[in-house]
Amino acid sequence: MREAYHDQLGQLADQLADMCGMAGDAMERATSALLQADLGLAEQVIGDDVKIDDVRASIEEQAYALLALQAPVATDLRIVLAVIHAAESVERMGDLALHVAKAARRRHPNHVLSDTVEPYFAEMGRIAVELAREATDIIRTQDVERARSLEDADDAMDDLHRHLFTVIMDKDWPHGVPSAVDTTLLGRFYERFADHAVSVAKRTVFVVTGRMPGYGDDIDD
Amino acid sequence: MREAYHDQLGQLADQLADMCGMAGDAMERATSALLQADLGLAEQVIGDDVKIDDVRASIEEQAYALLALQAPVATDLRIVLAVIHAAESVERMGDLALHVAKAARRRHPNHVLSDTVEPYFAEMGRIAVELAREATDIIRTQDVERARSLEDADDAMDDLHRHLFTVIMDKDWPHGVPSAVDTTLLGRFYERFADHAVSVAKRTVFVVTGRMPGYGDDIDD
Repeated sequence: MREAYHDQLGQLADQLADMCGMAGDAMERATSALLQADLGLAEQVIGDDVKIDDVRASIEEQAYALLALQAPVATDLRIVLAVIHAAESVERMGDLALHVAKAARRRHPNHVLSDTVEPYFAEMGRIAVELAREATDIIRTQDVERARSLEDADDAMDDLHRHLFTVIMDKDWPHGVPSAVDTTLLGRFYERFADHAVSVAKRTVFVVTGRMPGYGDDIDD
Repeated sequence: MREAYHDQLGQLADQLADMCGMAGDAMERATSALLQADLGLAEQVIGDDVKIDDVRASIEEQAYALLALQAPVATDLRIVLAVIHAAESVERMGDLALHVAKAARRRHPNHVLSDTVEPYFAEMGRIAVELAREATDIIRTQDVERARSLEDADDAMDDLHRHLFTVIMDKDWPHGVPSAVDTTLLGRFYERFADHAVSVAKRTVFVVTGRMPGYGDDIDD
């Protein structure tokens, strides 16, 4: 029975990793949709978002059943609770990618972003997708050493986001208010996506080591 | 022993209600700080935020202990899990109020907002605080009928937020890009605060009735 229980825990972790992979794919496609004004890709992300929500619902159901039927204690309980929290974060990652895709669709056939800022978003998109992939791998492999490298990527994202903000707020911003507003909101989506990916990695480290790493910004909204 | 267990559940719910009250207070003070360029109030919110985080940590610890030691099933398990999720939402409410306070402090002694939009934020602030108070009362009283009225307040917040957005994006917006950007971000903080308060109320309804109400927007980031 204990073996069946650990199989169930393993299945939970696998589903979480799958879900995190889906969120990474969503952000990759959403970023392409944004930078290339690609309506088809945007629609794909929008249509696929419900699948991410479905995995979260399934994870929560299974976690609940595990808690109710197996009454886990100590480490196992910590794993189940961490999976529940992480699934919430990953669903938000999916929703943030969805926001990006919706912005691309809304302004199609125009580009949402000005040429000035598109390079920032190309790089933020690359970092965001990389963070999601790393988080996915860390969940699968339980390799907590890899979690340390996420700190650097998250710092890079924060630096880009801050720099982008100074560009937007510069008195010589030439693209008008609507573009500044869109750019601000989109920048925030990427920054929050990264924060959530780091949060998922931190929870995994906590599960494996029993200690919550102290690096990086906390999720703050 | 069952009685002691139910006492512990009641204590968890009380702490959650206290925490939700603190978040409502934080947003009330942060809004005043914003609208009155009040540095002292802003600093108070900023300093008090850690107390909200501490209550969340305490709730999670007690919930964990309850799960580990009492192995609750069925309804009780649902309550404990709902409290864990709700505490996460309330902590975010506190962080959103913190963001508002930090914006007020950053621009002090100037007002962050233009005269054009301050009335919107006065109303959004009022609604946000009302939603937090209602959520707090619903947790304490378990009165799920009151949860239905939150839908109206949340709709009002969404309407205000959407209207504010059209004002910002209007070609005749006279206050420049930085003001538009600040206003956009602040509007988003109030809208998210409201979403989280509604989420907390929905979880309470779920705990009491076993059904998750379908109204309003889901939390999406």
